[in-house]
Amino acid sequence: MFSVTVRDHMMIAHSFRGEVFGPAQRLHGATYVVDATFRRPALDDDGIVVDIGRATQELSAVLSELSYRNLDDEPEFAGMNTSTEALARVVADRLAERVTAGALGDGGPGLVSLVVTLHESHVAWASYERSL
Amino acid sequence: MFSVTVRDHMMIAHSFRGEVFGPAQRLHGATYVVDATFRRPALDDDGIVVDIGRATQELSAVLSELSYRNLDDEPEFAGMNTSTEALARVVADRLAERVTAGALGDGGPGLVSLVVTLHESHVAWASYERSL
Amino acid sequence: MFSVTVRDHMMIAHSFRGEVFGPAQRLHGATYVVDATFRRPALDDDGIVVDIGRATQELSAVLSELSYRNLDDEPEFAGMNTSTEALARVVADRLAERVTAGALGDGGPGLVSLVVTLHESHVAWASYERSL
Amino acid sequence: MFSVTVRDHMMIAHSFRGEVFGPAQRLHGATYVVDATFRRPALDDDGIVVDIGRATQELSAVLSELSYRNLDDEPEFAGMNTSTEALARVVADRLAERVTAGALGDGGPGLVSLVVTLHESHVAWASYERSL
Amino acid sequence: MFSVTVRDHMMIAHSFRGEVFGPAQRLHGATYVVDATFRRPALDDDGIVVDIGRATQELSAVLSELSYRNLDDEPEFAGMNTSTEALARVVADRLAERVTAGALGDGGPGLVSLVVTLHESHVAWASYERSL
Amino acid sequence: MFSVTVRDHMMIAHSFRGEVFGPAQRLHGATYVVDATFRRPALDDDGIVVDIGRATQELSAVLSELSYRNLDDEPEFAGMNTSTEALARVVADRLAERVTAGALGDGGPGLVSLVVTLHESHVAWASYERSL
Repeated sequence: MFSVTVRDHMMIAHSFRGEVFGPAQRLHGATYVVDATFRRPALDDDGIVVDIGRATQELSAVLSELSYRNLDDEPEFAGMNTSTEALARVVADRLAERVTAGALGDGGPGLVSLVVTLHESHVAWASYERSL
Repeated sequence: MFSVTVRDHMMIAHSFRGEVFGPAQRLHGATYVVDATFRRPALDDDGIVVDIGRATQELSAVLSELSYRNLDDEPEFAGMNTSTEALARVVADRLAERVTAGALGDGGPGLVSLVVTLHESHVAWASYERSL
Repeated sequence: MFSVTVRDHMMIAHSFRGEVFGPAQRLHGATYVVDATFRRPALDDDGIVVDIGRATQELSAVLSELSYRNLDDEPEFAGMNTSTEALARVVADRLAERVTAGALGDGGPGLVSLVVTLHESHVAWASYERSL
Repeated sequence: MFSVTVRDHMMIAHSFRGEVFGPAQRLHGATYVVDATFRRPALDDDGIVVDIGRATQELSAVLSELSYRNLDDEPEFAGMNTSTEALARVVADRLAERVTAGALGDGGPGLVSLVVTLHESHVAWASYERSL
Repeated sequence: MFSVTVRDHMMIAHSFRGEVFGPAQRLHGATYVVDATFRRPALDDDGIVVDIGRATQELSAVLSELSYRNLDDEPEFAGMNTSTEALARVVADRLAERVTAGALGDGGPGLVSLVVTLHESHVAWASYERSL
Repeated sequence: MFSVTVRDHMMIAHSFRGEVFGPAQRLHGATYVVDATFRRPALDDDGIVVDIGRATQELSAVLSELSYRNLDDEPEFAGMNTSTEALARVVADRLAERVTAGALGDGGPGLVSLVVTLHESHVAWASYERSL
């Protein structure tokens, strides 16, 4: 199995509901350094999994819809905690939609799965893996 | 599949028995930067895999039982080489015991597996993965 | 010249005023991975610059006053942009006050300078250096 | 499952054929920081997956056959794009041959799989995983 | 003293002349992860050293003139070894020209120095520091 | 000013005397990831600060005299705490002796200073800087 990973980041504000979160129930924020991994059992005709330039563009496009925002004000996240792991799924699902819509070109159909990892600090990160 | 990882470290002395280890047969030591990954197919009612604060506390508790010690003097390791990979299993098994005993609260029962990685330097690391 | 550096982090929300900031004028947030460096021309009687444990505690205490907050709501930051570089000075000045007040023990008086670096992402960071 | 990973690097020149590669169609180059992961379900008699020293030597030997070369001039790569992911497979296959030939000693036969990751920058990397 | 650093990268081919370089006399290549640090004794009216977005754009512009090229074919480098440290000076000097020409806006004049670091691998890097 | 840095590591056991060290008074150990920086105001005739290969060899030679040892048993360290910062000076002084003795060849005489940084974990490191 082959994989290619590209990295970018986003910077957001949010708060959490639930006693387990302690001080993180207050409005605060995070930089998420985001890794998106694309998996393919065989290389395409160009000898690649996906073009790294295109993959970077698509990840950047997904993150620009979230970055520099207070997620507590975004209707799409009403009633949910935008935890690191929940946001990993949001990013993965949006990337998957783009792949399905052809954003990665001819190589897209050969992809079998996608992993998105959000690093919230040097000592904590979360991932979501899904099929394509 | 979702995962959350937390990082901490420990500093120990030890020596190895066996010619394959060369100069590492002498008493020496290591800093292990330790990553513990908790996996769950679905998020809990708070929208998380495990609380990062609690996971960090449990990892710290496990490491404090090993850190600042000469492992050659610890009866529990008599007769075994405390290699990086062997210690990864020790840390994973002790974390698993804590999860089973309820240390991570209501979220613990939903966890399906655990990976512990010990980085012994910038150029070598080892992991152990087990189910929960 | 000797130095010792310890690392910790904080997670905050804020917004910026000024067209130069573009989308960062909106309420957003950041994780700052914070490095505090203490400098001393000679080692103390214990053979160290500062005790790493104590230095870590003091840095953690300073960061806990800022973390998990919306800095736009903090009176102390009224009328200023809490840029990465401005926050580096805030953290450095507060650490310096603690050193002067004796928080690092007998070793404190021998320190000559302090550098605080805040990493806002994997591709951008800022520092402030001051004498002690 | 246990794993051990060792890291090294190589520095090569090459060019790509195909419009998808844009400016990378020109002769350019890359440093690849290379991680090789060896997996084993159980530890060997010495309590390890592989000896880290031996694994490092074998990885270094494989990389020295590629490093400081223009891959466009190497007959073995004629007609293929030496993409990061394609090179990950080359390194993995050559390591696998060495393992099969006994380069890792008695521990080799117990290994079940191998993953090779090539980091081409701080924001992109690729992997190839295969069984042994 | 304040500083702000931004990171980007470039990928080039080149060769070295001189026996000291051993196998690096052959045509090979490198990824350089490039950090550019801007220093200023006081913050500007916006409370910053330089706008991180603008600094990133200028660094990217400088690197795009070098990246995806065989430096042996560039007339500007005829007769010189494009070592990591020599390229650090090239990047620093080109950034300095842009700052002097007003590329960083009103904040540029307050800058006093510039450091450029090129990381050629996980185990080697080089820097050049100059005044502005 | 130019600089070149090379990285290697060593693994040692030791203990500390003094109440300030708490549990680190027990025999324990550390991996030190070691960075050695060589500074020169101008490049030599080959266009470099020092040859990275030679610098790496010299650093490796110095570290091999310390690694895989219990520093408490080494007569040269009798009566001193082998703290991270104290060991940074030991490594720097030994490298300086080698430079003075001609180990870096013709380039050595042009060097003006040396910095050695020892990383004891992902959250703490120490440096020593000296002239040459």
